[in-house]
Amino acid sequence: MRKDTFVIGIDFGTESGRVVVVRVRDGEEMAAAVVPYPDGVLDERLPGGARLEPDSALQNPSDYHLVLEKGVSKALREAGVTANDVIAVGTDFTSCTVFATTRDGTPLCFLPEYRHNPLAWAILWKHHAAQPEADRITEIGRERNEEFIRIYGGRYSSEWFFAKVLQVLNDSPKLYEAADRFIEGTDWIVWQLTGLERRNNSTAGYKAMWVKGAGFPSRDFFRALHPRLENVIQEKVGTDFHSLGTRAGGLTAHWAQAMGLLEGTPVSMGVADGHVAIPATTVTEPGSLSMVMGTSLVQMLMGNERRIVEGICGVVEDGIVPGFWGYEAGQYAGGDMFAWFFQHGVPAIVKSEARKQGLPFTTLLEKRAEALRPGESGLLALDWWNGNRCVLVDADLTGLLLGATLATPPEAIFRALLEAAAFGTRQIIEAFDTQGLHTTSVVACGGLPAKNKLLMQIYADVLGREIKVAKRPQTCSALGAAIHAAAAAGRRAGGYDSIPEAAAHMAHLQSATYRPRPESRKIYNRLFQEFRTLHDYFGRAQNDVMRRLKALRRETLAASRNL
Amino acid sequence: MRKDTFVIGIDFGTESGRVVVVRVRDGEEMAAAVVPYPDGVLDERLPGGARLEPDSALQNPSDYHLVLEKGVSKALREAGVTANDVIAVGTDFTSCTVFATTRDGTPLCFLPEYRHNPLAWAILWKHHAAQPEADRITEIGRERNEEFIRIYGGRYSSEWFFAKVLQVLNDSPKLYEAADRFIEGTDWIVWQLTGLERRNNSTAGYKAMWVKGAGFPSRDFFRALHPRLENVIQEKVGTDFHSLGTRAGGLTAHWAQAMGLLEGTPVSMGVADGHVAIPATTVTEPGSLSMVMGTSLVQMLMGNERRIVEGICGVVEDGIVPGFWGYEAGQYAGGDMFAWFFQHGVPAIVKSEARKQGLPFTTLLEKRAEALRPGESGLLALDWWNGNRCVLVDADLTGLLLGATLATPPEAIFRALLEAAAFGTRQIIEAFDTQGLHTTSVVACGGLPAKNKLLMQIYADVLGREIKVAKRPQTCSALGAAIHAAAAAGRRAGGYDSIPEAAAHMAHLQSATYRPRPESRKIYNRLFQEFRTLHDYFGRAQNDVMRRLKALRRETLAASRNL
Repeated sequence: MRKDTFVIGIDFGTESGRVVVVRVRDGEEMAAAVVPYPDGVLDERLPGGARLEPDSALQNPSDYHLVLEKGVSKALREAGVTANDVIAVGTDFTSCTVFATTRDGTPLCFLPEYRHNPLAWAILWKHHAAQPEADRITEIGRERNEEFIRIYGGRYSSEWFFAKVLQVLNDSPKLYEAADRFIEGTDWIVWQLTGLERRNNSTAGYKAMWVKGAGFPSRDFFRALHPRLENVIQEKVGTDFHSLGTRAGGLTAHWAQAMGLLEGTPVSMGVADGHVAIPATTVTEPGSLSMVMGTSLVQMLMGNERRIVEGICGVVEDGIVPGFWGYEAGQYAGGDMFAWFFQHGVPAIVKSEARKQGLPFTTLLEKRAEALRPGESGLLALDWWNGNRCVLVDADLTGLLLGATLATPPEAIFRALLEAAAFGTRQIIEAFDTQGLHTTSVVACGGLPAKNKLLMQIYADVLGREIKVAKRPQTCSALGAAIHAAAAAGRRAGGYDSIPEAAAHMAHLQSATYRPRPESRKIYNRLFQEFRTLHDYFGRAQNDVMRRLKALRRETLAASRNL
Repeated sequence: MRKDTFVIGIDFGTESGRVVVVRVRDGEEMAAAVVPYPDGVLDERLPGGARLEPDSALQNPSDYHLVLEKGVSKALREAGVTANDVIAVGTDFTSCTVFATTRDGTPLCFLPEYRHNPLAWAILWKHHAAQPEADRITEIGRERNEEFIRIYGGRYSSEWFFAKVLQVLNDSPKLYEAADRFIEGTDWIVWQLTGLERRNNSTAGYKAMWVKGAGFPSRDFFRALHPRLENVIQEKVGTDFHSLGTRAGGLTAHWAQAMGLLEGTPVSMGVADGHVAIPATTVTEPGSLSMVMGTSLVQMLMGNERRIVEGICGVVEDGIVPGFWGYEAGQYAGGDMFAWFFQHGVPAIVKSEARKQGLPFTTLLEKRAEALRPGESGLLALDWWNGNRCVLVDADLTGLLLGATLATPPEAIFRALLEAAAFGTRQIIEAFDTQGLHTTSVVACGGLPAKNKLLMQIYADVLGREIKVAKRPQTCSALGAAIHAAAAAGRRAGGYDSIPEAAAHMAHLQSATYRPRPESRKIYNRLFQEFRTLHDYFGRAQNDVMRRLKALRRETLAASRNL
């Protein structure tokens, strides 16, 4: 029998990094290490103390280094795996997280003269302060009938690459000039590990307007956005993009030593955390929908051809698995919305009751919410606590709760939020459906399917479909990074020759699934009609109150700053 | 100098009864006693254990007796006032609270054979289970073009007298037959004290379709509602109604002894707790608006003539102060809505932070809400946690919160609820205005102005008017009952000859007032336009989602009961 080989997957999430050591033969996770980011999400102040604009979300790049330094050696030790048996390293990163760097990849916030400038830090995926820039890009893109506008379902998101780059230019022209490179976190981390600036074709396609065979929009387009943006591609981005699951380079001496690995160990191309999880859910074929359910919600559908779907995040050839068209959609808030409720909406009595019963309060809340039947709460919510990603693509939409009475208990609100997430997903699946992209099966992964069974049953009832769950739902991204690593290593080095081949051996599902209950399904069909009516009323410009309130909030905060 | 005389005012509220001993000369409150109702509001189960329908709200009449027995002697003792110096007793009662009684006034729930029947108990003002009956009354009233429909602004409320009587008949024909009398709590308590069934013309006018000079609708109307209701007036209600501020009778021997007073001490006519407070706010003239701000919100405007105003609760000649037309409007939830939030919406961290600072958590919440500028929260709410009383008159409308984000703290929600209450009141004042009923001054009383300064400032800013506050805002109803008692006693017995005369001596205002701030006013003008748009969208049948969700909730609960 051949000696076992191992790969390392490193998943850079929103709050922490997770390192797994995985056996190549069967995908068995030998050990894992989680390293929380000391600075977390910077949304009120910079580490130096400077106050941030509303809707800001930044990170400290040192925190990513810490994951490499502490996490890898710890996981290796625990797994009892030596550096010799590690055939490759794979990473994934939140997306679209953007860095402004020097020519050698140093983030500008590491330089004393820029550390007080918020946009010199890692601009996190959920940074929503670039909405005006996104609106301008959409406007110019539509006027010029640019290809990317169709690919992105009609709107460019404030979370994406050029909205953030344009915000840097608008807010801080000096910083824009000082930045030699603008780069996605997915590619930045690979640059750190290998010393090579090698960019992947997936995030370029989903977030940065790049199209296989056609490249970026023209200089004219970028000049129309802003005169100084004309040469941004040539000067600060580049035009070479590489396939997922291939080798980006080998570990540098510095990082090999810091991580306890061998110099030159292959590193796979960077990939977004949502996309990397898909092979880990066993999905590598058309018609299968993967739902990555964590702080936000991402749905990926594989297709054989390109169709234009309203408000989806993007469709990219080879974007998830080389050889297929990868459709991406999503919701800005999932676990984040529930976490908001746990922090800001759960009254003290629930916590003290849970303490009495010896339960985590979230468990008690879930039990009580589960005891309610569909329709019993009288509540309906729109899941827009962090804006609407699909199909409306508008970060300025906000959360709605309707139907409260003096008899409404907190568990009813909690259940309404779970239902809202499921309704939001159904809206997306139906948008795919109207374009002939039919979902034949659904697999879930992420932190939520691991923790919240009620949510999964509600999903089955609301979607009217069986929901399968990945074997280790919480670590699909890390396993996916390991699968990418195994594919980058290749069969001759003890890995596999493609992502689907690696996934076929390394990815597994739980045997238990969630099945829709006919009675609940009927009621949720009625409630979904109500959801859709409100969705369209507030989302499709019938009543722009949410956007006006957001604008008023910005205006008020700006006025109070100027006092 | 003439010897001081005293009156006793007894205010039967929603959660407790309050007794005050008041000096007639200047309205000084010599002592007060509060007696909480042991059974409180019965909205889930009867004292015997039987489960109640959703939207039920009942009370145990024994609790009112307890107030008389414990409260009066205690207050007298504390005041050092003897029975000889008490020249009259006045009461007020929540309205429209309805009793089904035997011929001698005994509530049917006191009889063993009816105590398991929910509607044999006091049917509290906020009992909302009679909405189908209210809808039917509105429908028949409109078809027949009945006078009361115009007086009540176009709709009959589920809270009112005949909606509740009709529910008794529909749900329990036997109980209807067993009831010799149906009577408002205001008149029932006077009947208890004096042994005389003497009904007042104010609640009859505001809640029971009675019109001065014309009486009740015809037998035909009642037969159209239900064949067995044809003779309800003749058989179970009566046609004699008496003016506010007059003598209903004298204390019976039993109650004089139980309360420590003299037999035959004059008792004034019964009056609703909202109406009785008005003279205590010094308002006895046209153009002055009184706001009674407690668990619910009531606005009263005095006028010289009758106008028809959309959706007001009623306009009754002599209904508040004899000689004027009293316009009543209101909102179903005020303090109740804030209390819901305190109980169900305030997270544990706020409570623990308040403990650290040595503050009640409500104070901390108010401080933080006060630090937010108008518009800063990005939130907007509709104050319909208990339905909409005016101007839509629909108990099936429900609460709405719009604009929530992951950054929304609890104090922002609290502030949005305070603002929603003020917007709801502005909607009412503007409805009066369109009919030429102009508000020239505003005086507030009730528990809220005493406790919540932020709410009062928001009211001033939202209404764009100076708000004055009664000297003792929390006890206006009890003082009002005392004023009514002084008027019922008459000048020769040491009292006064009319309610205005009594009020001129006994009622006082605080010197400090709340004035609108121009900047806040501008922003609230914008927000009120948004409020109005949502109000009309959800309230005027553009999207009946709230009503459909309520119907679905009822359906779901009924189905689970039948399992």
